[in-house]
Amino acid sequence: MKNINIGLVGFGTIGAGVAKVLLENHEVINARLGVELKLKKIADLDITTDRGVTIPDGILTTDIDQVIGNPGIDIVIELIGGYEPARTFVERALQNRQSVVTANKALLAKHGNELFTTARENGVDFYYEASVGGGIPIIKTMREALAGNNITSVCGILNGTCNYILTKMGDEGADFAAVLKNAQELGYAEADPTFDVEGIDTAHKLAILTSLAFSCPIDFEKIHVEGISDIKPVDFEFAREFGYKIKLLAIAKNEAGCIETRVHPTMIPKEHMLAKIDDVFNAVFVNADALGPSLYYGQGAGMMATASAVVGDLIDIARNLSNSNMRRIPDLGFQDNRITPGNYRPMSEISSQYYLRFSAHDKTSVLSRIAGILGGHEISIASVIQQGGGQGDATAVPIVMQTHIARERNLRAALSEIDQLDIIAAPTAVIRMESDL
Amino acid sequence: MKNINIGLVGFGTIGAGVAKVLLENHEVINARLGVELKLKKIADLDITTDRGVTIPDGILTTDIDQVIGNPGIDIVIELIGGYEPARTFVERALQNRQSVVTANKALLAKHGNELFTTARENGVDFYYEASVGGGIPIIKTMREALAGNNITSVCGILNGTCNYILTKMGDEGADFAAVLKNAQELGYAEADPTFDVEGIDTAHKLAILTSLAFSCPIDFEKIHVEGISDIKPVDFEFAREFGYKIKLLAIAKNEAGCIETRVHPTMIPKEHMLAKIDDVFNAVFVNADALGPSLYYGQGAGMMATASAVVGDLIDIARNLSNSNMRRIPDLGFQDNRITPGNYRPMSEISSQYYLRFSAHDKTSVLSRIAGILGGHEISIASVIQQGGGQGDATAVPIVMQTHIARERNLRAALSEIDQLDIIAAPTAVIRMESDL
Repeated sequence: MKNINIGLVGFGTIGAGVAKVLLENHEVINARLGVELKLKKIADLDITTDRGVTIPDGILTTDIDQVIGNPGIDIVIELIGGYEPARTFVERALQNRQSVVTANKALLAKHGNELFTTARENGVDFYYEASVGGGIPIIKTMREALAGNNITSVCGILNGTCNYILTKMGDEGADFAAVLKNAQELGYAEADPTFDVEGIDTAHKLAILTSLAFSCPIDFEKIHVEGISDIKPVDFEFAREFGYKIKLLAIAKNEAGCIETRVHPTMIPKEHMLAKIDDVFNAVFVNADALGPSLYYGQGAGMMATASAVVGDLIDIARNLSNSNMRRIPDLGFQDNRITPGNYRPMSEISSQYYLRFSAHDKTSVLSRIAGILGGHEISIASVIQQGGGQGDATAVPIVMQTHIARERNLRAALSEIDQLDIIAAPTAVIRMESDL
Repeated sequence: MKNINIGLVGFGTIGAGVAKVLLENHEVINARLGVELKLKKIADLDITTDRGVTIPDGILTTDIDQVIGNPGIDIVIELIGGYEPARTFVERALQNRQSVVTANKALLAKHGNELFTTARENGVDFYYEASVGGGIPIIKTMREALAGNNITSVCGILNGTCNYILTKMGDEGADFAAVLKNAQELGYAEADPTFDVEGIDTAHKLAILTSLAFSCPIDFEKIHVEGISDIKPVDFEFAREFGYKIKLLAIAKNEAGCIETRVHPTMIPKEHMLAKIDDVFNAVFVNADALGPSLYYGQGAGMMATASAVVGDLIDIARNLSNSNMRRIPDLGFQDNRITPGNYRPMSEISSQYYLRFSAHDKTSVLSRIAGILGGHEISIASVIQQGGGQGDATAVPIVMQTHIARERNLRAALSEIDQLDIIAAPTAVIRMESDL
C-alpha cells in the first residue's frame, strides 16, 4: 500500500507533540489505518532547540519549500500559529493540492472562509480538529456524529487558562491578579495573558463552532466578547449563595433562525455539567433536536492532547487519499452551497437573567431607588442580598440582586441611570446568569 | 445525485424515532450530506400500533423480504433487538451486500465477530454507534477521532436505569426495592429489570468497548459481572464519609498487554468526572496515551437520542456508498488482520482498594480478629469507621473499612474466613473502590 507523506511546518511545543505521536505511536496508527503515515519533513526557522523528541536524520529543515509545494508531501500540518506567515503557507499548500491540517483558531476565525474556498477549488481537505477544545473531538462530532440533528445551541469552556483562574478564585477566595500570577508560574498562562483572559481566544473558537452549528460563514466580528479580569472574589461568594458557579462561557444559540454569539463570564447553576468542569479542562455542551444535551470533555491545550487531534485529522485525510475520496466531509459539515449568512441578534437585544452587584452608600433609601429605576426599565428582581448596613453614610456596601429575565438594552439603560446616583459609589458589576443552557 | 434507500426492520420506540428523524430532519440531513436519504420500507409484524409518527403510504409492510435482500434497499437498519430473528436478518442483509446499521448490543456481544466477518466478506459496512451509550458518539470517537492513540482504559456508566437508581438511593437514602419501583413507574426500568440491574446490559456494551480499545475480538464471556441489587442505603452514607460516590461502572483496562474487563458497583472519588454523572445519563471516560483523559456524556437511551446515533451511522455509510468507498473504517477500528485474541486477567488476580462493611456482634475483640485475618492475607487497612458499640453482644453493628490496594484472590480468601467467625452476623458487603481511573 502507498505511504502517505506528511510535512510539518512549525516545530514548537505542539509540533514536537505531533512528531512524537507519529513516531512513537507508529504501530497503533498503522494497525488502524493500514497505510503508512510517514513524517518526511519538519520545517522551522529554529531547528536546533531541543524539543524533547528525537527526529531521524534528514527530516528537519529551515527550507519551507521542502514542505509547501513539495509534490512528495501529501499532507501539510500548519502549527506556526497566528496570521502570518501561517495564512500564506496554508494558502500555497492548498493551491499546490496538498491537504492541510491546522490547530490555528486565530487563522480560521479571520481567514477560514477564504481558505475553505481555496481548499474546495483545489479538491483537497483542510481539517482543523485541534483548533477548538484541543484534544476533544468536537469538530468531528458536530460535522459527522450529530449530522442527523438540528443543533440548537453550543456552549463551551474553551480556554484552560481562564477556567483554571476561575476555579482557583472560586475555591480559594483569591483575587484575579494573585491567581493569574500563580497560573503564569505554573505555565498555565502566558506572560502577556490578554488574549486568554480577555476572551479573544475563546471567541476565535466560538466563531468556528457557530458556523459548524448553524451553517453560516465564520464571522468573528459578530461575537460579543468580555473577559474575566473584572470579576471579584466576592462575586464567587454571592454566586455560591445563589447556587451558581462562574465560568467564562462561549455561547452560541439559534432561536427561530436568529443567532446569538457571545463570550462572557456567566453564572450557571452548580448542577449543570459545565459548572462541574474544573481547572485547565475544557468542555463543550451541545443541544441538538434529536440527541438532546451532550457534553464532550478533555484537555483543551497542551502538547500531546493537541497532537492527538492533529493526528486524528491526518488519519482521516489519509483514508480519503487512499480511497481517492477527498472532500468526503465539507469544511463546515454542510454542503458548500448550503452555507448562508447568519442572521445575528445584536447584543442589546439578547435576554438573560442578571447578577448585579451595586456598591452603594449605606442609606435606607438605596434599595427602593435602585428597584424603582430597574422597574422603570421593565426589569424585575428575583432576589436581593443586602449585607452590612446600619453604619450610616460613610461605608459603601454591596447590594446584590438576581433579576428575572430581562432585555440587555433595558438593563444597560437602567444601569447608566443607577450608576449616576449619588448613593452609588462605584460602577455596578454585572454577570449574566444562564439557567437554561 | 443518486438517492440512498433505507429499509428499517423493527418499528418499536427506537424505530419510530429513526423514522421521525429521517422525515422531520430531512432538510438538515440533505444540507449536510448532499444526497437524499430515502426511507423506503419499514418492516414489522405489527404495523397498526400508533407510534406517534406519520409514515407516508406504501412504506409500512409486514413482509421482511421487502427490506432484507431487496436490491432497492441500500442500507438496512435492524432495530428488533435480541438475538433472533435479528441475527438471521442481519446476516442475510450482509450476504445480500446491503450495509447494516444496528443498535443491538446483545447481538453484537454474542454474534458480533461472525457478523463482522460476513460484512467484510461481502464488502459492506456494519455500523453500530447506537449500541453503546445511546446517542453519545463513543464508537466514532474511539474508531476515528482517537485513532492516533493507544487507549489504556475505558470506563463507563452505560445503563441509565442503574444510574437513576443509584442516584436516587444516594440522594434520598431510599432502599433499592423502593427506588426500583419508582423507576418502573417513571418508565426508567422494565417490568423485569434483571437485564439492567444485574449488569448484563452494561456488560454487553463493555464487550464492544473493550474490543474497540484493545483490538481483540468481542468476548462477552470474559467479563466479570455484578449488579446493584445488593447495595444498601447505609453504603451510600459511608461512601460519602470516605468522599466517594457509588456507580455501576463498566471498566476495561490494559496494563502491559493484560486486559481486565469487569462490571460492578464501584466507589469513585466524588471529584472524578464519572462521579458527577447523575440520573439516567450515561458517560464514557477514556484514557489514551496522547489525549489523556476525556469524557463523553449524554442520553444513553430513549427514542430520539438513540435515533440520532442510528442516523449518524446512516449518513456515514451513505457517504461511503456515494463515493464507492465501502469499509472505509474497519469494524472495530483496527485492520482486520490486527484483531488478535486478548490476554485477559482472571478476576481473582485483579488489584483494587475495597470498601468492606462487616455486620459484627458488638464485642471488643471484633476489630482485632478481622484485622488479623486481613493482615494474614496481605490486606492492609487504610481507615476504619466503627459505629454504635457498647451495647454488648446482642446487636449487630456495621464496621466499615477502606483497604489499601489488595489482590482480589486474597480478599476473597480473607472474607471466607471472616464470614465464618461467630462474631459475624451476616455476609460482608464488598464494594471495589477505584481511585485511579
